[in-house]
Amino acid sequence: MKLYDGGRAPNPRRVRIFLAEKGIEVPLVPVDMATMGHKSEEVTARNPLQRLPVLELDDGTIISESVAICRYFEELHPEPLLFGTGAVGKALVEMWQRRMELHFLSTVAQSFRHIHPAMKEWEVPQIAEWGEANKPKAIQFLRFLDGHLAGSRFVAGDAYSIADITGLVGVEFMKPARLAVPDELENVKRWFAEISARPSATA
Amino acid sequence: MKLYDGGRAPNPRRVRIFLAEKGIEVPLVPVDMATMGHKSEEVTARNPLQRLPVLELDDGTIISESVAICRYFEELHPEPLLFGTGAVGKALVEMWQRRMELHFLSTVAQSFRHIHPAMKEWEVPQIAEWGEANKPKAIQFLRFLDGHLAGSRFVAGDAYSIADITGLVGVEFMKPARLAVPDELENVKRWFAEISARPSATA
Repeated sequence: MKLYDGGRAPNPRRVRIFLAEKGIEVPLVPVDMATMGHKSEEVTARNPLQRLPVLELDDGTIISESVAICRYFEELHPEPLLFGTGAVGKALVEMWQRRMELHFLSTVAQSFRHIHPAMKEWEVPQIAEWGEANKPKAIQFLRFLDGHLAGSRFVAGDAYSIADITGLVGVEFMKPARLAVPDELENVKRWFAEISARPSATA
Repeated sequence: MKLYDGGRAPNPRRVRIFLAEKGIEVPLVPVDMATMGHKSEEVTARNPLQRLPVLELDDGTIISESVAICRYFEELHPEPLLFGTGAVGKALVEMWQRRMELHFLSTVAQSFRHIHPAMKEWEVPQIAEWGEANKPKAIQFLRFLDGHLAGSRFVAGDAYSIADITGLVGVEFMKPARLAVPDELENVKRWFAEISARPSATA
């Protein structure tokens, strides 16, 4: 098995943090996204959508999409459970993972991709107005999250989960998107400090 | 248990089709999204993000996000499995469900929400250029899907799955978004004809 990795980009990082939490080591194939390595023949042959990371199993099976790769390892190595436990627990982790991704990480990513000059070749057409429209959406979601975290240690409850991982890379991605967590969101700051101090956060 | 439903919108429909495939009946609370019922006090108290559908369990637990609601029922009523089976099978369904959602249903939805005059109050600001930019993305994905479906009966292989449900509502949503499946995509048309003929498609 090998994992076509994409360095510091949010999605490759999500999978590496997930693997670190599980204590799983997978051989990485580094791909330099700065030089468009994700559009190379090698990657395109494995994932025609030209997104990273991509997991290739020994029999040649290809699994793309970060959350799908994580799901594969959750099934193979359940402990520690990062997708929740029981019908309600699994549903709540999925709900929060999706909220963190669709309302937060994605909005931060849109802000970055549609505004940052370095993304001109990546996002065609780059639409600054759309990038700007996403900034308040990201902050509005963080305000909602702050209220939720007032009564919850982690995003999906008492246990660390994949929803925290998506949140971690989302908050980190705010910097290149020129966004900042508002000072008054004490619960978001407390939560982010805790999850970014875990050993997995260096992955 | 009760399901706050949102009528003909894609996400409420995804959950109803899923339940129909499982043969599960859940009491529905109809919410009229045309009159902004999803922003009512009743819905907002349950899902501050004001999105439908929302599942409320008898103990008051709230599960929002269509795919999370589906996951809950998959755990309670596994047969027929709609999220795949085994580590690889589950990962491949998740991969395809995400591809169908992020590269197809979402791009169709963005085209609709940012261009259709009826969406002016829903999508603020409405950015026509962004709506237009999504149209070729939706079609480009369908071309990729057509190649895949040349060798696959359903989206994620031999078995019908939640990835097909996301695809079904995505193709249906093309009409209000003023998009059409290109004539030459025979495999997409064959697949869509098959899944839209299933009894669940009327849900």
